[in-house]
Order: sequence, then structure tokens, then C-alpha cells
Amino acid sequence: MDLSGITHVAFDADDTLWAHENIFVDAKARCLKLLSPYMKDGMNLEEELYRFERKNLKIFGYGVKGFTLSMIETAIELSDGKISGREIQQIIDLAKEMLDHPINLLPGVEAALDALEDHYTLMVITKGDLFDQENKLARSGVGQRFDIVEVVSEKNPETYRGILARHGIPPEQFMMIGNSLRSDVLPVIAAGGMAAHLPFEFTWHHEAVTETKETYWKVASMEEFVVALVETLPRRVG
Amino acid sequence: MDLSGITHVAFDADDTLWAHENIFVDAKARCLKLLSPYMKDGMNLEEELYRFERKNLKIFGYGVKGFTLSMIETAIELSDGKISGREIQQIIDLAKEMLDHPINLLPGVEAALDALEDHYTLMVITKGDLFDQENKLARSGVGQRFDIVEVVSEKNPETYRGILARHGIPPEQFMMIGNSLRSDVLPVIAAGGMAAHLPFEFTWHHEAVTETKETYWKVASMEEFVVALVETLPRRVG
Repeated sequence: MDLSGITHVAFDADDTLWAHENIFVDAKARCLKLLSPYMKDGMNLEEELYRFERKNLKIFGYGVKGFTLSMIETAIELSDGKISGREIQQIIDLAKEMLDHPINLLPGVEAALDALEDHYTLMVITKGDLFDQENKLARSGVGQRFDIVEVVSEKNPETYRGILARHGIPPEQFMMIGNSLRSDVLPVIAAGGMAAHLPFEFTWHHEAVTETKETYWKVASMEEFVVALVETLPRRVG
Repeated sequence: MDLSGITHVAFDADDTLWAHENIFVDAKARCLKLLSPYMKDGMNLEEELYRFERKNLKIFGYGVKGFTLSMIETAIELSDGKISGREIQQIIDLAKEMLDHPINLLPGVEAALDALEDHYTLMVITKGDLFDQENKLARSGVGQRFDIVEVVSEKNPETYRGILARHGIPPEQFMMIGNSLRSDVLPVIAAGGMAAHLPFEFTWHHEAVTETKETYWKVASMEEFVVALVETLPRRVG
């Protein structure tokens, strides 16, 4: 892969710049505990919750608020409507905690921005709730280091084509890095750009891709990504 | 006011392109009915709900999902936690109905687009949930008629300045029309643009402005706005 023509480097945000899915995993675990008195034998909360989430995605979209409403629905159904108002309040409090969670940058992110910012136009392309994503970027402390921030409701090839066209970026000069094959890698390749996959510890079912015929660049760390890019920069003589 | 230099006309969406606040008003009324068995004497649901909404705005942002979570919280508190899961499910069903509500263009909107689209760059600038607003614009049937669509999390002078800068629009060539003095008119004037206020039947407390020293253009109908703009266009000879 020839990286020497890259001018624009875009980062996914959740689970690429900062940990995110683990907050959902933790919230689900606490919800399971809350619901355990109502669980029937053989019930799998994780599966039930995913069933509601998937059904509600097209009406609620991505993000904590839609997730919370799905969690409340799951709780009501699993408990046959017996769950109390107080317990539902605990689910809402969980949501508020999730939305107010400290944003901790993942290893290598600050070093990556330091190494790349003088040489590339840096972008964030993130899917989800506009308000939440802007909030997180502001709280991350690195929001100001990106030249272009795009919050989108879905990451498909058309989304990426639209962003590239809007900013006048030739696809072959565009590189995206993210943890989701489905959202950050495959649609970018389909749009003519390059993409690096940096897996995160947890992958949400909805983002999982089992196999693909596309060839893509898999990196083990943010550092590996940065080193490979920086190596292609023209060397200073002297 | 000299309108002859205007090149860009931006519309607010909710309660300017289509009716919206009445859906919330209706939802609140149905919620009141649902909660009436739990209401204590002298309680004002409207006030209680607004108290939660305002408190939650900075964590949930604008939109139906945050509104719904606030409605559920209000219901839990007013009922001292006695509200049942089934009743909360009814609130969630209300939210889904709100999100799936048919989008009916307000009077004069289609005619306005017809009259203006060959002469101005048409924009939508709307505040709220990215997913919901994109969804509504798509369902409105007129989404494709706008050259620029901006969904923002807050409408303040910086927001408008940012949009104008990003698209290279000189402020004095920019005209915004909307139903909210607070969001669509005053911050636009502060950013150096022009703005027309087209009041809607309902105004959310949060958007109400009691007085202002700014002078702004108040129009009685979309038609009045369009006629005034079109009159400034150069006439064809022949």
C-alpha cells in the first residue's frame, strides 16, 4: 500500500480516540443485575436487549438516549410490566452517568496527533448523536486539534463520498482509521479511499462483520499506524 | 431593510417548514391524562415537566428522545415511584409515535421553494437530534430542494458565524427565516446577517423571548416573506 499520497487522515471517535463500548458493556451488566429478580430461567438479557436495540435503531438512531429507551423497554417486557418506577429511574440514572462519563483518550492517540498534525489535515468522522458526540469531543481535550469534524447518522459509502466531495478531498488522498470494519473500513474502501482497521477490545454485535472479500490494512496499535504514515513523509535534508 | 444583496436564504425546520411543537403539546396532554391518577392537588404537570426538561437539556440536548426520558423521570417523581412499567411503556410508545409522525409542510412552504430556488442558494439550519432531523427532512419530501443542510446542537451567534465561514457566505448576503426569536433571529443578527421572524402557533417556554432591543423583520406569513424577497430581484425585460 502506497501511503505517500495521503493528505487527509480521519479518525473514528468512539473506541478509536477514546474507550466507549466498555461503558455500554458496564451499563448492560448493571442493568442485568437490576433485572435479575425478574429474569425467567433461560432468559438471556443481552440477547433480549439486542433484539429491542435492533428493532429501535431505525426509529431512535445510535447513541445513549436511544439505547436507554431500549433498555427500559426490555426491562418492562422481561418483567411483564412489573418493574417499578424507582428501578426505571435507576436505568435513567445509568444513562446520565454514561453521558457524563470521563473521556479517556486511548493509548497512542495524543502522540499520533502530535506526530501527524503538521503534515496532514486531521479529521474526525463519527457516527451517533450530534449533541453527545460534540460534548465528548469537547470534553476529550483534543477537539481543537482536528481541522474537520463530521458527525453523521450512518457510515456508508455515500456518507464518505459526500464528505470527500464537500471538502474537495480526492478519495486517493484520504485515509481513515477506526475500530469498526463495517463503519470505518469497508465503506471507505468502497468510496475509493484507504482505511486502517484498529480493533478495540469490545465490538458491538451490530458492528461485527464476520468475513469480507476486501483487503484492508489491519494495524495492531495507533503507533504502528502513525509510524507507517510518517515513514512516507519526505525526509528533511541536513 | 435592503434585501437586494441577499444570495443565501436559510429556513429553520421545526415549526417553520413543518409543524412540530403541536406534536409535543399533544404528547404532553396525553401524558397528563396518563398521570392524572397520580397527580396531587395543585400539581402542574406542565411546570414539573419543564423543570426536568430544563435540568436535563445540558445532558440530553434537544429532541424527542431526551424529552421522553424527561417525561419518564417526571412521571416517576410525580407518582412517587408508583407508576407502573406498563404506563411507562405507553410513554415510550408516545415517543415512537412522535418520531414517526407524518411531516406536513406548513402553508406557503412549497410555493416559497418554487419561487426562490432559481434565485437563491437555499439552506436548512435546524437544531436538534441529527438522526431525527435528517429523518424528518427525508420524509418531508422537500429535502432535496435545499443546497445546504446544517443540523446543529445549539443556535447561537458562533454557530451561525461558523456556518457562514464554512460555506464562504458574506453575512450581509445571508437571510434566515424561523419561528424562534431566540434561535433563528437574534443570533443571526448578532452574526451580521438578516433574519425574518415568522411566529408559529405554539412556542416552547425555552424558546420564548419576552423582550429585545434588536430590531428585526416580523412577517405574518411565508408568502409575505417570499413576496418581499422576490420584489428585489432584477426584472426581466421583454
